Amino acid sequence: MTTVLDRLHELQVQVPDMRFLTGPDIPERNRTDWSFLPPSSPVAVARPTSTDEVSKLLAACHADGVPVTPQGGLTGLCGGSRPIDGGVALSLERMSGVERIDPDGMTMTVLAGTPLETVQKAADEAGLFFSLDLGARGSCAIGGNLSTNAGGNRVIRYGMARDLVLGVEVVLADGTVLPMLNTMLKNNAGYDLKQLFLGSEGTLGVITRAVLRLHPRPGCVSAALCVVDGYDKVLDLLRTARRRLGPMLSAFEVMWDDYWYQATQRVSGVRAPVEIGGGSHVVLVEMQGLGAEVDTPRFEAWLEEVFASATVTDGAVAQSLGDIAAFWATRDAAAEFANPAVIGPHISFDVGLPVKRMDDFARESKAALERELGCQSVHYGHVGDGNLHIVAWVPGAAPQPLPEVSRIVYDIVRAYEGTVSAEHGIGTLKKPYLGHTRGPDEMALMRRIKNCLDPENNLNPGKVFD
Amino acid sequence: MTTVLDRLHELQVQVPDMRFLTGPDIPERNRTDWSFLPPSSPVAVARPTSTDEVSKLLAACHADGVPVTPQGGLTGLCGGSRPIDGGVALSLERMSGVERIDPDGMTMTVLAGTPLETVQKAADEAGLFFSLDLGARGSCAIGGNLSTNAGGNRVIRYGMARDLVLGVEVVLADGTVLPMLNTMLKNNAGYDLKQLFLGSEGTLGVITRAVLRLHPRPGCVSAALCVVDGYDKVLDLLRTARRRLGPMLSAFEVMWDDYWYQATQRVSGVRAPVEIGGGSHVVLVEMQGLGAEVDTPRFEAWLEEVFASATVTDGAVAQSLGDIAAFWATRDAAAEFANPAVIGPHISFDVGLPVKRMDDFARESKAALERELGCQSVHYGHVGDGNLHIVAWVPGAAPQPLPEVSRIVYDIVRAYEGTVSAEHGIGTLKKPYLGHTRGPDEMALMRRIKNCLDPENNLNPGKVFD
Repeated sequence: MTTVLDRLHELQVQVPDMRFLTGPDIPERNRTDWSFLPPSSPVAVARPTSTDEVSKLLAACHADGVPVTPQGGLTGLCGGSRPIDGGVALSLERMSGVERIDPDGMTMTVLAGTPLETVQKAADEAGLFFSLDLGARGSCAIGGNLSTNAGGNRVIRYGMARDLVLGVEVVLADGTVLPMLNTMLKNNAGYDLKQLFLGSEGTLGVITRAVLRLHPRPGCVSAALCVVDGYDKVLDLLRTARRRLGPMLSAFEVMWDDYWYQATQRVSGVRAPVEIGGGSHVVLVEMQGLGAEVDTPRFEAWLEEVFASATVTDGAVAQSLGDIAAFWATRDAAAEFANPAVIGPHISFDVGLPVKRMDDFARESKAALERELGCQSVHYGHVGDGNLHIVAWVPGAAPQPLPEVSRIVYDIVRAYEGTVSAEHGIGTLKKPYLGHTRGPDEMALMRRIKNCLDPENNLNPGKVFD
Repeated sequence: MTTVLDRLHELQVQVPDMRFLTGPDIPERNRTDWSFLPPSSPVAVARPTSTDEVSKLLAACHADGVPVTPQGGLTGLCGGSRPIDGGVALSLERMSGVERIDPDGMTMTVLAGTPLETVQKAADEAGLFFSLDLGARGSCAIGGNLSTNAGGNRVIRYGMARDLVLGVEVVLADGTVLPMLNTMLKNNAGYDLKQLFLGSEGTLGVITRAVLRLHPRPGCVSAALCVVDGYDKVLDLLRTARRRLGPMLSAFEVMWDDYWYQATQRVSGVRAPVEIGGGSHVVLVEMQGLGAEVDTPRFEAWLEEVFASATVTDGAVAQSLGDIAAFWATRDAAAEFANPAVIGPHISFDVGLPVKRMDDFARESKAALERELGCQSVHYGHVGDGNLHIVAWVPGAAPQPLPEVSRIVYDIVRAYEGTVSAEHGIGTLKKPYLGHTRGPDEMALMRRIKNCLDPENNLNPGKVFD
């Protein structure tokens, strides 16, 4: 009987540049992602250097029924790139690099394994701007960002990863290469097939290259922290920010008082630039303007107005890049919550809700968690985008009761007609709850599409849905 | 033998509110669209009033193998909504109306048959803005706009129809209703199935409702006409406009000298606000700003700069809304070219090209048309979006030699790695040329997707590809 390893050995002869790591050579990092799921046991990690090699690998695995799990920077939070025991992990990390920048078309062509930060820097060096940004920027790969339709901090202005890609080169489950490297903003010639591969978490094809959309580089940045009392004031602030800052509004991040306390009182090195006092929320507003002479006064005039109208009870305007960094530090402090000196082991959520109902949701889920499980929680999120993050923990519990906490949160999400994943995706962790957001006919159509593109179910099996 | 009419008669009993028009009652307008294809002979026009009726109609037609062609405002230019002889035309025109506006979530829920202009006005009355805009705004329906992924005048700032929709309710070929009325900007829970139905010209499902994304209403508008000499100056102007006006740049329309002559010298009622003199192109630049006090001076400062740097040789700044209308009249004059007193019968193209190579393309196709067919042509387009329109005519020819002219133009499009349709879609008219833009493996995948969603090929058969 030919084993998977025998088959990979034959393949190695055909494609000598592709590296296979097997047995003890398999790096720990390729066994799971940032979801905290336990390491798995793939039979091999394949590290191709070209699309042709990816194609040959997928064709061989397809012929032999070997499951393949594509991997980018392995920073996903839901287990989407965690390999199958006995399957092959397909790492794109050796396919890295910026191939071309077109300043007139405002596009960049990159290999899928390129780290996001490399993409951002290359755009900046060309005098342009790639707007996708998230905490894992130094580690995550652009191919993974596209496969998961990553969101991040500036969705309110620039959209999600899906909105920032004009073309992709994709390898299908059977090894077929689709060179759909469209560079045009407008192209209505036939079905827009690239959409199938954006946000489907590597279950329909492997993205090997992409044409990204670039924007003009911002000429100036302003930021403020605003304390408000009552969620209706948060909505007032959002409404006036949209009207007065328009498309320059680049972030509208809301921190609930429970979050603010943890971030500024418990995380070492983070100070509170404003006093929350009797307020209920702190809002970080950022504007990317065109020029400081014109747009900084515009931002300050808007702030004076919201102070004068008593929408905001306290606030601070950044006077320097250092201030802007200090303001963002209060929002980024969530990354330190896992530290036992702060919150320690906890469960994170990334839900989406109608903007108007986010505070009702936060109160209701907070009360239900406390009442049913003695579970604590704090809330923060990209409110302008309808995206709420919850950090929940039962003090002293080990392990944390993931299924029980999830059930409570996601049942309320369903009642609010929200989504169980605004930006992180489904992977394996959220599979049990996908039906809370998508109906049975939608689930059936997803399965039909999967079956249409990957009838043998070799490509990232067990992810998104069963 | 049960005929299609017998079957529709049975269906009429089940759904008394749905109207069927047959025989001489079939309106002329439902027999074709604005493609100038000859009227067809559907067996009936169905005019349902609800999603449930659409579902029952599709289920019945699916069971009996009757082809169904969805129709919105019938303003398509490629024959996409022209019915099949002997099939049923499914008109959405009685499913019209704005159902809900959410000012916090910035969304609007509408029925598919709602005219675009009604959507625009409803947004405006709510103090918001729906950015999609095109010449047929009073006649076209939003469902058709989404099904064809319409473009129009402001894509450079707001994107195409695809970028303006958060959710859709869709009826599949077999009558299954998918109520995917997502209202959130971010939703990564499973495959984004709505993408399948946007831009696929009614071949995969019938959109019956949509959740649209609204934007803040612009606070002011500025416009200028700039004369430049040489396409490199057009690119310079685009580059500085993007940098200095950033996301406020709402249109960058370029008119080649050949177009400018026809528009301003031949079309009655259109005057030339600038003299092209020895220039090669006239550019209409529009900025949607936030407030006139701040942004009008910004626009004028940018213009002074491009004059001072000799990028622009002549120009005019709009001083009033009347001026803005007069500037746009030069661009909208193309709608009058069919008038025998201007150009008369002609062939229109809607191609997409890399921005940098648009002028080379225009010269090359103009020369080839003249040399091979004695064919005249003029050029204009949304250059910031890579979208070029060509109007071509052989003086005195009746009919105009559509296949010969198309072959010449599309062969050059292929050589430039452009697209045969930037915004109008494929319908039936451009089917022979889809392979100029899409490769054989892409075509094969489109067919697999079609077969997956509509295995009997009942839904708008014969459109996009065979």
